[in-house]
Amino acid sequence: MTVHLVGAGPGDPGLITARGLELLRTCDALVYDRLVSPELVAETPVGAIRIARDSLGQEEINDLLVRLGRRGLDVVRLKGGDPFIFGRGGEEALALAAAGVPFDVVPGVSSLAAVPASAGIPITHRGVSSQVTVLSGHDPHELDFGALARAPGTLVVFMGLALLADLADGLLRAGKPADTPAAVVSKGATPEQQTVVAPLAEIAEAAGSLVTPALVVVGDVVALTGSLAPHEFLGAAAA
Amino acid sequence: MTVHLVGAGPGDPGLITARGLELLRTCDALVYDRLVSPELVAETPVGAIRIARDSLGQEEINDLLVRLGRRGLDVVRLKGGDPFIFGRGGEEALALAAAGVPFDVVPGVSSLAAVPASAGIPITHRGVSSQVTVLSGHDPHELDFGALARAPGTLVVFMGLALLADLADGLLRAGKPADTPAAVVSKGATPEQQTVVAPLAEIAEAAGSLVTPALVVVGDVVALTGSLAPHEFLGAAAA
Repeated sequence: MTVHLVGAGPGDPGLITARGLELLRTCDALVYDRLVSPELVAETPVGAIRIARDSLGQEEINDLLVRLGRRGLDVVRLKGGDPFIFGRGGEEALALAAAGVPFDVVPGVSSLAAVPASAGIPITHRGVSSQVTVLSGHDPHELDFGALARAPGTLVVFMGLALLADLADGLLRAGKPADTPAAVVSKGATPEQQTVVAPLAEIAEAAGSLVTPALVVVGDVVALTGSLAPHEFLGAAAA
Repeated sequence: MTVHLVGAGPGDPGLITARGLELLRTCDALVYDRLVSPELVAETPVGAIRIARDSLGQEEINDLLVRLGRRGLDVVRLKGGDPFIFGRGGEEALALAAAGVPFDVVPGVSSLAAVPASAGIPITHRGVSSQVTVLSGHDPHELDFGALARAPGTLVVFMGLALLADLADGLLRAGKPADTPAAVVSKGATPEQQTVVAPLAEIAEAAGSLVTPALVVVGDVVALTGSLAPHEFLGAAAA
């Protein structure tokens, strides 16, 4: 009886870890997020309980995991990306710890680097970026745009599409150069991936037609996409 | 003939991706980093070329990959963690692109979240941290400690052990509270993992006996380790 908090990786089912896949193939019960690929859900044994978390709030998920764990089941809680990079895995882990239910964490490939990679963008690159600032889709009023504009290196924003116009505007007002390369990658590492690259001053308009989930990348590394994207990257290979 | 830049994940061999493992099991040639686990090297087919990169400089690796690719071989370039989070994968990709050798990138689990996770530390946590700043072991004179001290959320420093005393000192002088929780995780996600947790003002002395590679984590999320670490986390499970 263990609840395994497992990172599924970004879209592509081949990006789950070997250990995560093994746990999936032997579990008694699976609780999975909407963004997890159907191929991974299909890996669970015939007869396993499969619960899509779509309609459940975080408290309800916590309770569900505790209940399933207490029934002595081997449970996989499959989350998109990595459980601890904007994955709310910590909340589930704390609920399980408080209830005395054994659990472990199997990290996953985060969208943080994998999604830019599938668009030919390395988030760090020697001589270009040795620092990365990572945010999730905040209320723009809570962000310190001055500090973000001055931070060296690469800025990556999870769930950044709704925030995009405010984000670009805030960074530009704080002095970030208008020609700073920016990219939005929609449905990264899936066959429906779409990438828009534009200067920061134009990115919000250029990416207007993209859909969620989307990752925003701002910084000079984005300019490398011209050299790296035309090759056979994972996103293209999966298409 | 493709050169696959593959992330091996942090220490634990179970944390390579399913796709990475498949490529490893069918490759003609493997070029691997020192920190990659021997179990993964052993997954290559009998008769495959296996080259440890230990004594090679980055230029030599780039040339080697181009040469192997041009011979029509299926090459796996196996790198610790993720190729694009301080992995120098971008340099290898650019060299391959310039030489016209087909390549792809298979992302990996980065130490960024996996190593803190194995010590019971979620690098983001609702209400505690929704921003992460990631650095690699810089020359401390190049760092803007004022900005780093004021940045909200979690600070993660790769290869931070040599820098630790200067880092802590710089942050404290810039006004970061002396009691900010800090952790150093040595040899994370391997059976030899060791973790030291202490207030920022004491972390350099407390972690004095740890060995590289080590990841430094500074921020309130570190305090969660008390609730999360005693459970069966991956690091402990692998021991």
